[in-house]
Amino acid sequence: MRVGIIGLGLMGGSLALALRKYKLVSKIYGCFRSVKQTKEVLDLNLVDEVLNIDELKEKSDLIVLAISVDKIIEYIPKLLDININTTIVDLGSTKKSILDNIPLKIRSNFIGAHPMVGTEKSGPSAAIENFYENSVVVLCDTNMNSSYHLNRVKNIFSTIQMKIIDMNSSQHDIHACFMSHLPHAISFALANTVMNHEDPISIVQLAAGGFKDMSRVAKSSPSMWIDIFKQNRDNLLESLDLFKNQMNFIQTLLEDEKYDELENWMKKANTLHKIL
Amino acid sequence: MRVGIIGLGLMGGSLALALRKYKLVSKIYGCFRSVKQTKEVLDLNLVDEVLNIDELKEKSDLIVLAISVDKIIEYIPKLLDININTTIVDLGSTKKSILDNIPLKIRSNFIGAHPMVGTEKSGPSAAIENFYENSVVVLCDTNMNSSYHLNRVKNIFSTIQMKIIDMNSSQHDIHACFMSHLPHAISFALANTVMNHEDPISIVQLAAGGFKDMSRVAKSSPSMWIDIFKQNRDNLLESLDLFKNQMNFIQTLLEDEKYDELENWMKKANTLHKIL
Repeated sequence: MRVGIIGLGLMGGSLALALRKYKLVSKIYGCFRSVKQTKEVLDLNLVDEVLNIDELKEKSDLIVLAISVDKIIEYIPKLLDININTTIVDLGSTKKSILDNIPLKIRSNFIGAHPMVGTEKSGPSAAIENFYENSVVVLCDTNMNSSYHLNRVKNIFSTIQMKIIDMNSSQHDIHACFMSHLPHAISFALANTVMNHEDPISIVQLAAGGFKDMSRVAKSSPSMWIDIFKQNRDNLLESLDLFKNQMNFIQTLLEDEKYDELENWMKKANTLHKIL
Repeated sequence: MRVGIIGLGLMGGSLALALRKYKLVSKIYGCFRSVKQTKEVLDLNLVDEVLNIDELKEKSDLIVLAISVDKIIEYIPKLLDININTTIVDLGSTKKSILDNIPLKIRSNFIGAHPMVGTEKSGPSAAIENFYENSVVVLCDTNMNSSYHLNRVKNIFSTIQMKIIDMNSSQHDIHACFMSHLPHAISFALANTVMNHEDPISIVQLAAGGFKDMSRVAKSSPSMWIDIFKQNRDNLLESLDLFKNQMNFIQTLLEDEKYDELENWMKKANTLHKIL
């Protein structure tokens, strides 16, 4: 199989490495952007050749869109003339806007996938060979896909050791909001709160595991995350409201010195260890 | 040196293991609580002998208080008759209330220390030999200590590979609030938000690194953390206000679809990677 990957950062680059590891590909193509970027992805052995988009479309059996979620939607018009046997898969963190924007002409070819895995790092040098192993990938609205294309993508994800879950895109966006987008928003807010108040030396000296873990995803790419927040705005606003209710609750209990109730609220949060 | 440790959980138990590793002790004593607890700390080799408090006071050159911050204050009256050469050190996460509660009689013997390290785990089985290595320990209001006691404690912390920082207890409590207590409060709130909204199966299936990291400290002991929140209430309320301002900011920008401003706010949070 020949695979063309648009976007060779953490997600796309790691997929390239996994496809090679599991011998799923004869060729991997990247799309030309700049001389420097081309050199980097060739040096890192993420691709065999860098082509222009027309060559990539012609030569690829599978095209992977591993760019930010707004750019995926912008890219779609360039893919309308693909061959009937060419499969497209996107790896975006939102699914409803993307899938609602796929024209019927290529809808059966286009698989919407969200690998539930990430780090705060980005760019080709962030790519890791075993990044996807033992992780979950959510496939959305697959009733719109032909079994030819769907099976090709499912085969790839299961071969690289991922667990596949089917979900409709609206449900996906709600779950992804609570399990990923809301935590990212909170991490950005915590990082800004602390950096506004604390000097850099104190941050370095006094940061222990708790703060380090909770502020880690605030180091994620803003240009990637602004598009996710934009596309999942309604769900994110709703989840922010629910989270603020919890913050108001702790604040009120502290103000009123209702420590027994506060401890019960913490015990409830504590039951998470039975799940995760 | 003979060391008595009151509280042999993550903090006290790990200190026992570090004291043995660096050959700083001839004997480690624990304080009797129940037959089961006594057996556990002996089986884990955290102590050589379990004594009652009077025996422990008589035999120990150094007494370590590694219990929850309210219990430290409750314990102090039992230590008023220590020998003039006996040192006491507490490892609590708050410092001002504790140090303000030490009677003058033993004030020069009593070192207030906060090791800036932790995990969500608790109890004797959570103890780890190299837990403290390469971490920071804050010593507070040390102008109240005699150099005899202070040097004994500093020597221990530096031998077990900790970096020592001096700070006054009011400043400590503010820094510890922003760098640790606020992040814990947020984690409890996030865990409750997600568990109220999401079913356990979705949480297990869809939790990636971001949520796992951000909810980890919500698994911390509520009985330990309620005392910290109580003792650092005023600072915590102030930090919660500042954090809520940040949450209101993101919410307003999302509502008004001011994405450029929102991205700039995220870029500001993103600069954390230059510090940590």
